[in-house]
Amino acid sequence: MNFNGKHLINGEFQADSDKSFQAVDAASTALLDGQFRHATLTDIDRACQLAGDTFPAFSSVAIETRALLLERIAFELEAIVDELVVRIGQEAGLPEARVRGETARTTGQLRLFATVVRRGDFLQARIDTALPERQPLPREDIRQCNSPLGPVVVFGASNFPMAFSVAGGDTASALAAGCPVVVRAHAAHPGTSEWVAKAIARAVDYCKLPAGIFSLIQGKGHDIGKALVQHPAIKAVGFTGSLGGGRALCDLAAARPDPIPVYAEMGSINPVFLLPRALDERAEALAEAFVASLTLGTGQFCTNPGLIIAAAGDGLNRFRKRVADIITAAQPGVMLNPGILNGYCQQQDKYRTEAELISEGEQATNRASVTLFGTSFAKWQDCAVLHEEVFGPCSLLVETVSSEQLLNAAEQLEGQLTATLWAQENELQDYPALISELTRKVGRVLVNGFPTGVEVCDAMTHGGPYPACSITNSTSVGSRAIERFLRPVSFQNFPNDCLPAALQNNNPLRINRLVNGQQDIEPIG
Amino acid sequence: MNFNGKHLINGEFQADSDKSFQAVDAASTALLDGQFRHATLTDIDRACQLAGDTFPAFSSVAIETRALLLERIAFELEAIVDELVVRIGQEAGLPEARVRGETARTTGQLRLFATVVRRGDFLQARIDTALPERQPLPREDIRQCNSPLGPVVVFGASNFPMAFSVAGGDTASALAAGCPVVVRAHAAHPGTSEWVAKAIARAVDYCKLPAGIFSLIQGKGHDIGKALVQHPAIKAVGFTGSLGGGRALCDLAAARPDPIPVYAEMGSINPVFLLPRALDERAEALAEAFVASLTLGTGQFCTNPGLIIAAAGDGLNRFRKRVADIITAAQPGVMLNPGILNGYCQQQDKYRTEAELISEGEQATNRASVTLFGTSFAKWQDCAVLHEEVFGPCSLLVETVSSEQLLNAAEQLEGQLTATLWAQENELQDYPALISELTRKVGRVLVNGFPTGVEVCDAMTHGGPYPACSITNSTSVGSRAIERFLRPVSFQNFPNDCLPAALQNNNPLRINRLVNGQQDIEPIG
Repeated sequence: MNFNGKHLINGEFQADSDKSFQAVDAASTALLDGQFRHATLTDIDRACQLAGDTFPAFSSVAIETRALLLERIAFELEAIVDELVVRIGQEAGLPEARVRGETARTTGQLRLFATVVRRGDFLQARIDTALPERQPLPREDIRQCNSPLGPVVVFGASNFPMAFSVAGGDTASALAAGCPVVVRAHAAHPGTSEWVAKAIARAVDYCKLPAGIFSLIQGKGHDIGKALVQHPAIKAVGFTGSLGGGRALCDLAAARPDPIPVYAEMGSINPVFLLPRALDERAEALAEAFVASLTLGTGQFCTNPGLIIAAAGDGLNRFRKRVADIITAAQPGVMLNPGILNGYCQQQDKYRTEAELISEGEQATNRASVTLFGTSFAKWQDCAVLHEEVFGPCSLLVETVSSEQLLNAAEQLEGQLTATLWAQENELQDYPALISELTRKVGRVLVNGFPTGVEVCDAMTHGGPYPACSITNSTSVGSRAIERFLRPVSFQNFPNDCLPAALQNNNPLRINRLVNGQQDIEPIG
Repeated sequence: MNFNGKHLINGEFQADSDKSFQAVDAASTALLDGQFRHATLTDIDRACQLAGDTFPAFSSVAIETRALLLERIAFELEAIVDELVVRIGQEAGLPEARVRGETARTTGQLRLFATVVRRGDFLQARIDTALPERQPLPREDIRQCNSPLGPVVVFGASNFPMAFSVAGGDTASALAAGCPVVVRAHAAHPGTSEWVAKAIARAVDYCKLPAGIFSLIQGKGHDIGKALVQHPAIKAVGFTGSLGGGRALCDLAAARPDPIPVYAEMGSINPVFLLPRALDERAEALAEAFVASLTLGTGQFCTNPGLIIAAAGDGLNRFRKRVADIITAAQPGVMLNPGILNGYCQQQDKYRTEAELISEGEQATNRASVTLFGTSFAKWQDCAVLHEEVFGPCSLLVETVSSEQLLNAAEQLEGQLTATLWAQENELQDYPALISELTRKVGRVLVNGFPTGVEVCDAMTHGGPYPACSITNSTSVGSRAIERFLRPVSFQNFPNDCLPAALQNNNPLRINRLVNGQQDIEPIG
């Protein structure tokens, strides 16, 4: 396959300007084939306007059509996976197994949302029937269900060119909700973005849906994202990336004449607490599992374990020694792109100034070395730099003076995507206050595992208090991600045949509904 | 009963400053008894800090305790209703029947949230059990439920001194969610606020909960609200009031180091569409029902019908004539306070400049006259002033050239709390595009009724796109209001006895849970 290079708008490649850029090979920094255009305000306006124009039609198609669309996108992606392996290998430096795994995750995610759409619980249908005899006033028939929010802008993320990019979780959940999507392709993988966008366009066409419900915008620079977030037709934004980038988009959205939500997942340091008995009994095994998680994907996951907290003692000494030994021999890794590598080196240097270097892996030009730093609880709690995320295979070991101080450490944490506890059997039961504190600080608490590997399922939360996420009561992974793009609408005293299908008396969608306070799947009236 | 006048913090009346103010009698503008203090930053910090300090304890009490607290608050309010009738009559100019009705609504709302808490669906419990044999990777046990967001600041609203104030829907839903509450009393009804706050404090004490979970802050001026919204311990805000006030709070919250959600319900003009056959067949009856809704509570409801849209014709002429005749004889009303009356007169004057006065009721000093203005669709669509809410008994009749133009009018609307359609049998079926457009524009669409009277039930939406509401996917009335103060948290691979009750294997709360994609109330494992 080769590249058109233009923006995909209304099912056609078009571009207002000839100005273009090329992608860069992550490993060699050589320029890759394909001339990709920079979007102008005209391109952006066209895509957003179309999203707005097609919203009424898309929001009212049958729920089943949305499910079929999601499944067809998955099918179309599977048909191009061999080409994606090559191009993502170049554009993001990811190995074949990772690309196949991430594509499977992406198609699985699309199919999960098809299941969610068919299950219908996302509609949250509720019916309070009329009470004409009620005193002092009668109650009218009132029914409520969720309705799509409107056109959504999705920012592709660099670290997951499939799962958090053009056809990733934000796009899947927005389309599942009935919202048209305009994707702003990440400039680090424009070729991958084009191919995935074409796959989506084929699926839209196959399902006979309006082409304008999906557009792809290419280009470099902050102005493109700014114009997309500020466009009046856009009603919500999905973003996965840095705190700086996410916050800038939030600020733009909040300053609009009509503020809109920006669901920004902005990373995390993902603290791992090693409880004393776990350390005593398996320090070496924990060390090995930890380094495996730290170095997975060259440390470029939002859930990378960037902070280890444990009480001083023999167990911790053994853990530290084993980690240091493994890291010393660790191979340096290719990062997603030169900008990411540069940022990693800068952030690592700040750690070098503020903390003690415990161990560093092998180094090479254009590669990221694995590093572990160490510091005391006293030093850490007062040092802002050591609370910042280092995006890459770097972690910080914070040593507390006692296991009681683990709670103090948890209290010092900012909002996090995850927190992990390593504990022996019946050990966790001695730390109820620590569990409770972490529950208030993070989106997901794990026991005896590592946070990398975010399962796409009904019960997943990938979010958390600021700065992990801009909107705390949301998740960007798992079926509840659809809620970000829905809003409740009530219908009072409506003729049955004018109601949305979800609320009609005979329950044509056969979904669970809350009828006069009771869950019920039966027809009413 | 008499007044202490200080702030209720930690179950005690205290104040950092002696600076005080008095409430004003709405009807006579005379000063009322009671010297109420202006909160200082010290008072505010104390209340917010306490809310933060008590959050861990309150968030982990049994769900049943929260239900009992809500019921006990209702009980305590019923015990003081006779005193409230007198004081609210003075502070807000509301007649006895209204105060008793609003108090019943408020206690009913508290009891509804007790029901919601016991029903447990607000927890949205989900369990995906481990799949150790899954290929290529096993799945760990992952469980998710909603958790309280953190301390909430509630702004009392002037127009509902009970139902949207100290013990109103925001407080009830925040406490139901497990969030401590700091109420900023509306300065127009400080006496009412103190008595209601004392009732809540008695209920908190009765339930042996920490006194710090509820505080009341008194005072005048914007600085108090600003300091509350900016306090680091506060995690969300509930507000009902003007667009200017709500937007200012949203902007403050968005500019915090850690932005927090402000759920601001900021009013609406609540368009009413009169379809041609309905007008032809019952113009006079519609006119009478409309004026009754317009003048209810001197027009001081968020859902007051401020806009009538209908096609020119004989039916509309009859409607206009009948409305004009009734309004001419309408008595002027006492407004909530002199500031509200002043704002009403100013906004009314803008309408006088931009539209034709169809009819005006009787006038009197310190009273609001009922007014109906008229204009053409062509004039209305270009005149921003005529899209602004006039808070009070004033409405605007917009005449379209045809019934087809009703859809164009709907397209011109900003976000609204409600839209209403008056239609004869089988008439609505001819307007699918109009229904669809209104569904995208508003929180609640009604047929053959008037929007005043917001039922407190499971299926109610009191919200809508900006500027009706600052956060479109929320409602401030009805049981889904609790969702504003919750966020999902996941627990991965947790020992059963360390999980929240909602997620434990034996389902001790006996709630519906989504287990491996199926709704189930049975124990698992």
